Amino acid sequence: MLKPDVKMELVAIVGSDRYVDQPEVLTCYSYDSFAEEAMPEAVIFPLTTEEVAEVMRIASREKIPVTARGAGTSVCGGPVPVQHGIVLCFSKMNKILSINTRDRHAVVQPGVVNLDLQKALAPHGFFFPPDPGSMNFSTIGGNVSHNAGGPRCLKYGVTVDYVLGMQVVLASGKVVRFGSKNIKDVTGYNFSALYCGSEGTLGLVTEIILRVVPRPETMQTLLVTFDSLDNTARAVSDIIGSGILPAAMELMDKMTINAIEDAVGIGLPREAEGTLLIEVDGTTEACSRERQQIVAKVQEHGAVTIEEACTEEDRNRLWTARRAAYGVFAKISPNIVSEDVTVPVSRVPEMIRKIVEITDRYGLKAGVLAHAGDGNMHPLVCTDRENHEEWQRVEKAFAEIFQAAADMEGTLSGEHGIGLAKAEYLPLVMDQDTRDFMALIKHAVDPDNILNPGKFV
Amino acid sequence: MLKPDVKMELVAIVGSDRYVDQPEVLTCYSYDSFAEEAMPEAVIFPLTTEEVAEVMRIASREKIPVTARGAGTSVCGGPVPVQHGIVLCFSKMNKILSINTRDRHAVVQPGVVNLDLQKALAPHGFFFPPDPGSMNFSTIGGNVSHNAGGPRCLKYGVTVDYVLGMQVVLASGKVVRFGSKNIKDVTGYNFSALYCGSEGTLGLVTEIILRVVPRPETMQTLLVTFDSLDNTARAVSDIIGSGILPAAMELMDKMTINAIEDAVGIGLPREAEGTLLIEVDGTTEACSRERQQIVAKVQEHGAVTIEEACTEEDRNRLWTARRAAYGVFAKISPNIVSEDVTVPVSRVPEMIRKIVEITDRYGLKAGVLAHAGDGNMHPLVCTDRENHEEWQRVEKAFAEIFQAAADMEGTLSGEHGIGLAKAEYLPLVMDQDTRDFMALIKHAVDPDNILNPGKFV
Ligand SMILES: Cc1cc2nc3c(=O)[nH]c(=O)nc-3n(C[C@H](O)[C@H](O)[C@H](O)COP(=O)(O)OP(=O)(O)OC[C@H]3O[C@@H](n4cnc5c(N)ncnc54)[C@H](O)[C@@H]3O)c2cc1C
Ligand SMILES: Cc1cc2nc3c(=O)[nH]c(=O)nc-3n(C[C@H](O)[C@H](O)[C@H](O)COP(=O)(O)OP(=O)(O)OC[C@H]3O[C@@H](n4cnc5c(N)ncnc54)[C@H](O)[C@@H]3O)c2cc1C
Repeated sequence: MLKPDVKMELVAIVGSDRYVDQPEVLTCYSYDSFAEEAMPEAVIFPLTTEEVAEVMRIASREKIPVTARGAGTSVCGGPVPVQHGIVLCFSKMNKILSINTRDRHAVVQPGVVNLDLQKALAPHGFFFPPDPGSMNFSTIGGNVSHNAGGPRCLKYGVTVDYVLGMQVVLASGKVVRFGSKNIKDVTGYNFSALYCGSEGTLGLVTEIILRVVPRPETMQTLLVTFDSLDNTARAVSDIIGSGILPAAMELMDKMTINAIEDAVGIGLPREAEGTLLIEVDGTTEACSRERQQIVAKVQEHGAVTIEEACTEEDRNRLWTARRAAYGVFAKISPNIVSEDVTVPVSRVPEMIRKIVEITDRYGLKAGVLAHAGDGNMHPLVCTDRENHEEWQRVEKAFAEIFQAAADMEGTLSGEHGIGLAKAEYLPLVMDQDTRDFMALIKHAVDPDNILNPGKFV
Repeated sequence: MLKPDVKMELVAIVGSDRYVDQPEVLTCYSYDSFAEEAMPEAVIFPLTTEEVAEVMRIASREKIPVTARGAGTSVCGGPVPVQHGIVLCFSKMNKILSINTRDRHAVVQPGVVNLDLQKALAPHGFFFPPDPGSMNFSTIGGNVSHNAGGPRCLKYGVTVDYVLGMQVVLASGKVVRFGSKNIKDVTGYNFSALYCGSEGTLGLVTEIILRVVPRPETMQTLLVTFDSLDNTARAVSDIIGSGILPAAMELMDKMTINAIEDAVGIGLPREAEGTLLIEVDGTTEACSRERQQIVAKVQEHGAVTIEEACTEEDRNRLWTARRAAYGVFAKISPNIVSEDVTVPVSRVPEMIRKIVEITDRYGLKAGVLAHAGDGNMHPLVCTDRENHEEWQRVEKAFAEIFQAAADMEGTLSGEHGIGLAKAEYLPLVMDQDTRDFMALIKHAVDPDNILNPGKFV
């Protein structure tokens, strides 16, 4: 609990209904979708940038840790307040401030849920490409702060590619503005991009100018199955390596497909060792041609079945199934650890073999789900953190997986972020001088280390 | 001239042939394509990151200013060593270290000329989208440090969108590495993006990992003329506003077309008040369809002639003419000032009217050249800096143009950078707290202010 006089000051800013410190409510803000928990002393729900600034002025005077939170769907411990203090939850700061399709931008508050933005853009024939699996819940503020990706990011790029500018409240409570509504802008340092993926450690994002794009005329979706996971992975590297760029190319292994099928029962191919969900988009003619090229490639790699989603309904069904994957795994076991290693796409087959070999060797129940076209792999391990012996095996397996990724010029995280989950592994891919440089910037921006302290920096 | 003992140390690092301090040679490194000049005390041509690091260790110990230089084509005074000291010229550090089209990346030294990279990629069927008008001369290090754009960036995005990672020598001489060869990577802060556009004020970029992309199957180029500049501009906003995204859409006014025609004589339409050079690319079918949509739109806006470049030769001829624009203007008058204001594309017609009104009112000889599709306008003013009275008019006119852009939610620079040229105008688009924040970061990274001092920060 915060000191009574500090609490009074904070309540004076947001009112007593938006300042919460009942333990049973605090508990709800003590975790995300990763395994660790820590209790905040208060949760504040700001409505305006000015409120955030006022809160920060007090927090900085009192040196109270402040951890931002969107929807808490992070899988790396990002919004977990490990040093307690205040959780600033942006869920009520959820207005879409403007949509301008002539100039291709939208201005939003950070608490806007990704799906709500998509719904608001759809009648204009526009969309916001980043589509994390969590898009039905996760917020734009969280997407920005983790620089989220998603299936469609293969063709369209990740969140940072769609952020034109933002308003940020610094640790001191000062308010700064980066970027503009202009598609091209090199006026001053490119801070908007720096803040993308900074996980709430450099400031609080209170308004975001996004670039939005016209919806493609057509989308065509294919479900391809293979009788070997290795062939599946080879098909992926070969398609990308030969210059074809589908909108999305998702890989699922047998265990993943079966877990989804158990849960949603929509007729997914249970026998397949590997499945690719591939989407092409663009003009009708371009789609057809690209689809043909892809079909030829997957056949070369021994595709067993190739099914096309003929209706919009079919398409939605396949994508809903894909999005259900995490939730479905979560039902199989008390805990599910979803990793996020990424390698250059030519190494995907090698990396998948390695993941299977390592998780097998440690006797773990594991599946592979991947935004495979961009080399971004999510090995999923079903476990129970209470089972200490098994948990140790999980940790050892992941340490080996990270090392393997590093050896293949890969990286620790393609989209989930580092947060708590992977801070200790940073040295695998980042040398001491570079880590020192991160710390130097963090220290310059937040000298008292009150912004989401205890995370990767 | 640097102190003799310091010179000796520096010569020991690079050898006497790559350390230059003869005044007649120094002069060549005292200017760029902007108007101001300042003499360096020495020019050093490093070959390796280690040499750069060693030079920086000495410079930081001695607090000697160090200004990086690529090809010196900057038009904002970026590489001009206003506080003298050392110019580190990367022109000899020009190796393409690797090209991997399966994983879509290339690793280059900073001195590689943009065109040389394009030539190396072409046999693989790949290209590097950023194509500044200066691409035949400018270096990738310069492109990165100014976050350069170009005609094709309308569809493809600017340099930062193609930088996956880099190696940087800090002011202290420490070497850091940002990003990786992975298309998706959120491991640690997004420093690669921060360094794009940082104009040599935060560190020296000594190696760059670029994302490269397959060449589109077809490109089709149209030259459209109008009998009113306003209609030309309206056609641009309307095409973009209606969701069509050509690869490039360049606007030239009558004066620009005539200046080019005088110089290269390739039959450009001298009578037209406004001309659009539009390119679409993609599959043949998609191109044809997009071209039809564009033709319909320009006809709605009263296009007088629509000419298609039927052969690759025709296409090259048109683009060469467009690229010649600056050089051609430079021949008309002793000095040419090329500005770079950008506005949201719906405001292009309004902004162009404003530019014409202001330059007319100040009695200046001016043309308009624009990467119009992304709202990026280059008003070009022919002048003579020795003519003080006229120069004052030029300055007043530009101050009004900048103010007008700011009033339309535009920005000072879409691609040329701030450098020396526009530092004083920053307050028009950036508040004090944000400018202080830039200074804070600069100070944290370069406490003695030795990296390209005296520029925008
Ligand atoms: C089922 C499921 C599927 C997922 N699929 C994907 C996927 O495909 N791709 C992907 O990239 N991720 C995915 N994720 C991870 C997660 O959903 C994303 O990282 C998402 O962007 C987090 O958004 P959020 O609103 O839940 O943010 P939170 O989890 O609440 O916070 C995330 C981080 O951002 C910070 N933050 C939040 N708001 C702000 C703000 N306004 N200012 C400053 N910092 C802030 C927090 O402090 C924290 O560090 C998935 C997660 C789940 C549970
Ligand atoms: C005819 C002409 C046409 C042009 N057209 C365009 C255009 O269409 N689009 C566009 O964006 N620009 C354009 N420009 C501007 C200019 O060419 C670009 O900004 C280009 O990227 C500069 O590259 P350079 O190698 O000449 O760099 P320089 O001019 O030498 O340097 C540019 C800046 O980068 C810094 N720098 C250079 N190398 C490094 C390094 N290795 N590490 C750190 N800092 C470094 C310098 O200190 C300086 O601040 C044009 C210029 C001309 C003359």
